[in-house]
Amino acid sequence: MKHKLYYGAAWYPELWGEAERQADLQLMKETGINLVRMGEFIWSELEPEEDVIDVRPFAGHIRQLHDHGIDTIMCTPTATPPIWLTHGHPERLFVRADGAVMNHGSRQHICTNNPYFRQRAAIIAGHLARELGRLPGLVAWQLDNEFKAHVAECVCDTCKVLWHKWLEQRYGSIARLNEAWGTAVWSHTYQAFDQVPQPVATPFLHNSSLVTMYRLFQMEKIAEFAAEQAGILRGYSDVPITHNSSVAFHLDNEQLYRELDFASYDTYASQANRHAYLLNCDLWRNFKPGRDFWLLETSPAYAGSLTSYGQPHPDGYLIAEAVSAYALGAGAFCYWLWRQQRSGSEQTHSSILSAWGEPALGFDNVRAASRARLAIEPHMLATRPVQAEVAVTYSDRTKAFLATEPHRKLNYRSLLSDFYKRIVDMGIHRDLVPEGGSLSGYKLLFTPFVHYLSPEFVGKALAFAEAGGIWIAGPLSGGRTAEHTLHTDAALGELERYAGVHTKYVYPMEGTGSIGKAFGLSAPLSLWSAVFEPLPGGASVIGEITEGRTPGLAFATEQQYGRGAIVMLGSLPAGGDGDQLLRALIGHYAGRAGVTLRSDVTAGTVVCPRRGSSGELWTVVNMDGLGGRVTLPRSGQDALAGRAVPAGPLTLGPYEYRLIALEE
Amino acid sequence: MKHKLYYGAAWYPELWGEAERQADLQLMKETGINLVRMGEFIWSELEPEEDVIDVRPFAGHIRQLHDHGIDTIMCTPTATPPIWLTHGHPERLFVRADGAVMNHGSRQHICTNNPYFRQRAAIIAGHLARELGRLPGLVAWQLDNEFKAHVAECVCDTCKVLWHKWLEQRYGSIARLNEAWGTAVWSHTYQAFDQVPQPVATPFLHNSSLVTMYRLFQMEKIAEFAAEQAGILRGYSDVPITHNSSVAFHLDNEQLYRELDFASYDTYASQANRHAYLLNCDLWRNFKPGRDFWLLETSPAYAGSLTSYGQPHPDGYLIAEAVSAYALGAGAFCYWLWRQQRSGSEQTHSSILSAWGEPALGFDNVRAASRARLAIEPHMLATRPVQAEVAVTYSDRTKAFLATEPHRKLNYRSLLSDFYKRIVDMGIHRDLVPEGGSLSGYKLLFTPFVHYLSPEFVGKALAFAEAGGIWIAGPLSGGRTAEHTLHTDAALGELERYAGVHTKYVYPMEGTGSIGKAFGLSAPLSLWSAVFEPLPGGASVIGEITEGRTPGLAFATEQQYGRGAIVMLGSLPAGGDGDQLLRALIGHYAGRAGVTLRSDVTAGTVVCPRRGSSGELWTVVNMDGLGGRVTLPRSGQDALAGRAVPAGPLTLGPYEYRLIALEE
Amino acid sequence: MKHKLYYGAAWYPELWGEAERQADLQLMKETGINLVRMGEFIWSELEPEEDVIDVRPFAGHIRQLHDHGIDTIMCTPTATPPIWLTHGHPERLFVRADGAVMNHGSRQHICTNNPYFRQRAAIIAGHLARELGRLPGLVAWQLDNEFKAHVAECVCDTCKVLWHKWLEQRYGSIARLNEAWGTAVWSHTYQAFDQVPQPVATPFLHNSSLVTMYRLFQMEKIAEFAAEQAGILRGYSDVPITHNSSVAFHLDNEQLYRELDFASYDTYASQANRHAYLLNCDLWRNFKPGRDFWLLETSPAYAGSLTSYGQPHPDGYLIAEAVSAYALGAGAFCYWLWRQQRSGSEQTHSSILSAWGEPALGFDNVRAASRARLAIEPHMLATRPVQAEVAVTYSDRTKAFLATEPHRKLNYRSLLSDFYKRIVDMGIHRDLVPEGGSLSGYKLLFTPFVHYLSPEFVGKALAFAEAGGIWIAGPLSGGRTAEHTLHTDAALGELERYAGVHTKYVYPMEGTGSIGKAFGLSAPLSLWSAVFEPLPGGASVIGEITEGRTPGLAFATEQQYGRGAIVMLGSLPAGGDGDQLLRALIGHYAGRAGVTLRSDVTAGTVVCPRRGSSGELWTVVNMDGLGGRVTLPRSGQDALAGRAVPAGPLTLGPYEYRLIALEE
Repeated sequence: MKHKLYYGAAWYPELWGEAERQADLQLMKETGINLVRMGEFIWSELEPEEDVIDVRPFAGHIRQLHDHGIDTIMCTPTATPPIWLTHGHPERLFVRADGAVMNHGSRQHICTNNPYFRQRAAIIAGHLARELGRLPGLVAWQLDNEFKAHVAECVCDTCKVLWHKWLEQRYGSIARLNEAWGTAVWSHTYQAFDQVPQPVATPFLHNSSLVTMYRLFQMEKIAEFAAEQAGILRGYSDVPITHNSSVAFHLDNEQLYRELDFASYDTYASQANRHAYLLNCDLWRNFKPGRDFWLLETSPAYAGSLTSYGQPHPDGYLIAEAVSAYALGAGAFCYWLWRQQRSGSEQTHSSILSAWGEPALGFDNVRAASRARLAIEPHMLATRPVQAEVAVTYSDRTKAFLATEPHRKLNYRSLLSDFYKRIVDMGIHRDLVPEGGSLSGYKLLFTPFVHYLSPEFVGKALAFAEAGGIWIAGPLSGGRTAEHTLHTDAALGELERYAGVHTKYVYPMEGTGSIGKAFGLSAPLSLWSAVFEPLPGGASVIGEITEGRTPGLAFATEQQYGRGAIVMLGSLPAGGDGDQLLRALIGHYAGRAGVTLRSDVTAGTVVCPRRGSSGELWTVVNMDGLGGRVTLPRSGQDALAGRAVPAGPLTLGPYEYRLIALEE
Repeated sequence: MKHKLYYGAAWYPELWGEAERQADLQLMKETGINLVRMGEFIWSELEPEEDVIDVRPFAGHIRQLHDHGIDTIMCTPTATPPIWLTHGHPERLFVRADGAVMNHGSRQHICTNNPYFRQRAAIIAGHLARELGRLPGLVAWQLDNEFKAHVAECVCDTCKVLWHKWLEQRYGSIARLNEAWGTAVWSHTYQAFDQVPQPVATPFLHNSSLVTMYRLFQMEKIAEFAAEQAGILRGYSDVPITHNSSVAFHLDNEQLYRELDFASYDTYASQANRHAYLLNCDLWRNFKPGRDFWLLETSPAYAGSLTSYGQPHPDGYLIAEAVSAYALGAGAFCYWLWRQQRSGSEQTHSSILSAWGEPALGFDNVRAASRARLAIEPHMLATRPVQAEVAVTYSDRTKAFLATEPHRKLNYRSLLSDFYKRIVDMGIHRDLVPEGGSLSGYKLLFTPFVHYLSPEFVGKALAFAEAGGIWIAGPLSGGRTAEHTLHTDAALGELERYAGVHTKYVYPMEGTGSIGKAFGLSAPLSLWSAVFEPLPGGASVIGEITEGRTPGLAFATEQQYGRGAIVMLGSLPAGGDGDQLLRALIGHYAGRAGVTLRSDVTAGTVVCPRRGSSGELWTVVNMDGLGGRVTLPRSGQDALAGRAVPAGPLTLGPYEYRLIALEE
Repeated sequence: MKHKLYYGAAWYPELWGEAERQADLQLMKETGINLVRMGEFIWSELEPEEDVIDVRPFAGHIRQLHDHGIDTIMCTPTATPPIWLTHGHPERLFVRADGAVMNHGSRQHICTNNPYFRQRAAIIAGHLARELGRLPGLVAWQLDNEFKAHVAECVCDTCKVLWHKWLEQRYGSIARLNEAWGTAVWSHTYQAFDQVPQPVATPFLHNSSLVTMYRLFQMEKIAEFAAEQAGILRGYSDVPITHNSSVAFHLDNEQLYRELDFASYDTYASQANRHAYLLNCDLWRNFKPGRDFWLLETSPAYAGSLTSYGQPHPDGYLIAEAVSAYALGAGAFCYWLWRQQRSGSEQTHSSILSAWGEPALGFDNVRAASRARLAIEPHMLATRPVQAEVAVTYSDRTKAFLATEPHRKLNYRSLLSDFYKRIVDMGIHRDLVPEGGSLSGYKLLFTPFVHYLSPEFVGKALAFAEAGGIWIAGPLSGGRTAEHTLHTDAALGELERYAGVHTKYVYPMEGTGSIGKAFGLSAPLSLWSAVFEPLPGGASVIGEITEGRTPGLAFATEQQYGRGAIVMLGSLPAGGDGDQLLRALIGHYAGRAGVTLRSDVTAGTVVCPRRGSSGELWTVVNMDGLGGRVTLPRSGQDALAGRAVPAGPLTLGPYEYRLIALEE
């Protein structure tokens, strides 16, 4: 995976005739496509009748691609089981929490925990692995397609039995479950595991532990299915295995990628949402540290289905997307899709070629991005992304907790995106580090919105602080146990002792007129907030509440810890003033922590630092189409133009990108 | 149907006693009511127990009405099956796509494809036909009531079997279905017809062909039921048969009326929506060309049910409604309802008499409209509506396509209404012509929003252009095949060749900053748009895109075709500027086509041209209550006042109407 | 119940250990808590396995509380049946009208009409009554918890059978039901009671009589269950029985309290909604006239669950709440809850102590309110609330009617609250009097929005007017029969004759430009309105319609009746002008009726008049935090400060309260 940058597209040879396929191969080559992804929806093609299996046509496709200099990432086809697997077998279908049974006619309609499905999935994956697994040109496997994109938790009878087993394994005895979940509230107490319901319709809210545990159970099961399938592929094939996931899907990506070889994702963010585009790069780089991530799906111009569509990219934005992804660690940048589908329900999705075989909107941008890929390739291959000094914790488990407990429609993804955006706009290089990831090498760690802080995580973060790092925890972090209950020793449990604070109150600040003051700035406070007083000899107050229900108490504190510090952020400063206050806080602690991977780049432009044997390489990309500016800290060399660049201001035109090899 | 203008009301003699009935007859006569519609909900009255049938009371009602000089349109009562037909028989009930089973207690709760329902419906219709079919005073039949007003597609088991048969008849082999629908996308491929699901719940979208075909299948079935019932009536009765339909219901009106003798509809548009009122007249006149249409239901003042109600008409608007409907081709103008219901769920619907037998709000207007009817009657009977020179294509099939593929909540009815309104406001007389209708005699044809243009339609439109007509196709027209897939030869298939264009791109223009320029005007472009370049020696560009993703390409082109022309409109100019641009386009081509049925009438007033043996008659009606003005092209005679009117300006007061016999 | 003012909290000893319980007892005592409510969710604690019942721990709790000087209100635990009651028994579960079956995992998931549930509920209630019923310290029982808070009508098979029986009892023969409901409309006619459906899914609206009767049937059944349970308790215990209800729940409170000994409720209104807080006091005082009502649940600071939360009270508002409730007749003011729950789904609800045992937000206010309670207690015990002179009819039956017939989303509770708020803001003391309540002693009666006026009610109101009272009926009142049909003799039936009016029209006035003029003021008219003309020698017009569809007719009339008068209000004046007009009307008739319990208190402050052996006592409380002012009609004594207060202006600071003993 290190000898080239992949520039790819999703291809559906099974949907077209030989003439179109040959034309595709030729045009792909001309367009610079060097990777094709295929196969994720071909089950009925491979196995039109149960046990009548023929995967040879795809061996042929892989060979032909290879002959044209194009590598293949082959998918297992389990996202769309054929009709014979579910026709007449409603018990195999996915059942939504509202009781609706999903039917054949779209995708993901089967329960992936159904044993017969697992059996058939193993058989088809085995066939593919055995017959394609060692073909030249095959460079990777993708499992299934967008696990849990369209469905969340299944409540079918198979899942019910598995749920009861899972509970038994987790709790051992029903008494321990009752205690852990506090089921005495509302007389929920269970006498036996097989009485514990799935989170189906009730007149009012379910027990929060039950609902959250059901989500975690289901997340485990999909990771288990992935591991099972990966195991089968590995029996016949040595190429690495990935999956095209997303932060939007109903799974725990960290858990999933533990079973796989490298991390990949799909994204269809529009330009207006370009911070989400960057967030993906900064996150997926860190699921498998040290390995390239692959962007497996993005549109040439816009996403679309029969019932909705996204804004087309402005002319030029696509190039900025490709360059910034490569610079931030992508080993592959792939389009969905090569040739527009004539049927189905995504006929209106942007593609490289139209259904009638002509260049579609964005084709010119695809070619330009291809040229950009070629130009930057040697520089990318000679360097690796630089680890950031600033880390932000990412937690899909938190997504599950907040889905159970949204307060007022809180959504982890948007909370985190907003938080992240500010750091980008401040020109600070950053990593989104999954909960289980290493903190080694970081200077400043943000852990916002993580309801449940596990002992493992807290231990790691304390060690990080002990060693000199600054850990900024909150808002919303730490107030829940592993079981989604409250602590009964202190609002934030043990964390308070380490942070040198006592949480005096926890309450919703919205609309209470609360004002917080810190770093000389005042701003309204928002969200459910923890309000602190320092423990004797403990933390110092850095953010004081000056108005509202609890004036005089603190919303932000700092406690020296080892050679570092623990900063508690109990509330979220809001609005324009809140943004200023948060910037002051981030800037202050970035300074204190000695963060150097930072520039004065204008918002809308991004600096992607990499390093190789010959030193540091900045890739600077304008993303907003308005052009931008950054001060180069040292003189350097324009790696593409091959000419010297002085230290000082560097300006970029709309969507322009520059590769600057900085002098050491 | 040609010897008088009908002025009618819905009557429910079964809900009241003899005293009320006698009072009703007397008062109807005084009020000028000369037509009564009855019977659409009387099944349990006629057949209180299965096979115990007595329709004689209604023979009595018809005779009594006749004795009072009132004719009858008798309904079949199948919209509300009695309790014995469904109690204990859930398998006969209508099942919604979300799985909900409809129950007795409202109306339309049965599946009209259920064979036992069909059998019982045939029996009750047979009884009515046999015993009432030749009674003096009976002038027409109405089948059922508002087919598919409250339900759309049924997914019961009966429908499932019929669906499989329908598919087999349409496609012959499952392989052909798979190919036609492109089911290889997402591995939907079917092995046998009986595996093809109905469009029930799935995690994400269904195959578009499947969904659209299911709609068409259901539309066929309801037309089939209508034909079946009509056949029974015709066995015993010679009076013509109709149905009270609407553009809002889930059926194909053109298909339906093919089986019936004349076209009718219900409308409850409020004054603010008066263009919808006129649209109905201009449409229903053309389902059965040359025959009067009947307006079978409209309110004396406002619509109402327990859960909603419409705005009461301003004083006087009712007269304008009646006169404009007659002038535009209505043979009957009927109220719903004569006497307010004391029970049920429409007690709050406006009526002529209250539930306590007194004149209700609007009664004075009803009497005034009655006087107006009498005054204009001889002039209406002596003339017929003039065929327009401008036709706009109407397609209920398109309604089905757009329901499957709404992009971003597009709705055929509102798209078309907006388009239509502009033509009215420009003072142009127009026909809404159903897809299958003749284009003979028109000069200018608009075909907007018709996703699928059938070969038959295209052939007809080409012949129209060949013969000198100007055909303006688009926006949104022509991009889909009969199977709701894309063309694979060109974006718009064969149409491009005829239109002399090549569609370079098809993409959503909203938010891309696209500006179109034509006729010296510039405007933002909207909707999914087809963007053209002329074929060599082909079309000339009349609308150019000046800004956005595709500057320099065309959104509007014109190709000479025979003695006429084909104008492609690839996009919809939007906003106030878009309205101006569209008016310029319409005006330009109306001029080019030599459209003469056009006046400078002020918006809010309408000119309804008719012609008789003694020449042209204009009915000018003010609809907005603000008065209006129009220039008479020639001097004439005020047909009501019996005095000369000079050529030149004619002014009307609020809701005033004038009948001007223009000199030739 | 008369020797002290109760200051209480909900306690869940079953959720905590002995250490927490002991700490609670101590701290409750210190905080001034003298009443604990417990047990409403303990069924699985009492009866962990079917027929294994032990209620002794709660006897212990009651004794311990008593030892600490704290009385107990004990609850029956039927709101949360244990898992063994429903596991494997779906037929016992509550079924929503949309067909969704409610499951174990929240509360109220069982059908309270299920015979086996009734049997088990009787057994558990019997145990509690027998073993706790005569314990010292037990001062009251609460049945269940918030009947019908989370569910409305059940449509399970048990309910279906009961429904058919109920119908048979009400109508005797199916013919009478058909006649009463007018089922001939839409051919609904039934042949037998067992055919009558429950109001489940239909394509369009159900028959209104059916839907409303089903609501009344279900309301009766829940009252029947309450009576059944109360009967069991009374077999072993003499302390009075209540229930914590609300105006928001799906029941008929008047019917419910007929079976119980005193009235109680829960409320979580935020300060912005403080009129709703007062409305509750003015209403609940009148369900059991002459007896204290108890406020059984309110939050120390804010309500909260995992999915929503209320605004925290401003500092000080809690004291104003407590004092005003006591002054308006509360015998108890109780918090939900004492100690924050660590699990379940209401962990985010405000409490007195946190889950970790520390004072929570609002604790200081709880202590201050406790001190206020002590200070005012002797004065409250020495007096009783004065009956108002102005009564406003309250009708939960109307809630059922309007739910069936909401016109355009009308909601009885908000209509009534708006009407009520105006009277409060005018400084008029008022009672909300349930439909069946006595009118004796009142001078002015408002009966707005009561669709169905029963003969009993009309008789009572006529007698009231006969005796000199002024009865103001409407808007929306009187137009429906007991069966939710229309009258067929006159729009408002017999009422018109008494009121000396003829209702000429009934129609929706919104958007018609209707203007009403009365008392020299003009305002837009709104809602479905009855428009009057006086009968010959009948009413005089006091409000005339000057613009709109029916100018010249009346929207308000006055008819002398005996020594009093009947005022018909046919429409609702709207907007700011409408508010002024309604104030003028209220003020005028308050004057005419000789209303004296009225002050010039500024809006946001409230005067609560009481009377004892030593004369009249005003409790004046500022509720809006802005301070207020009122003119004392006579000099008096500040009962708390113990000093004289002159007649004339009295000013109050934010949330201040004063007890003024007025000189006679």
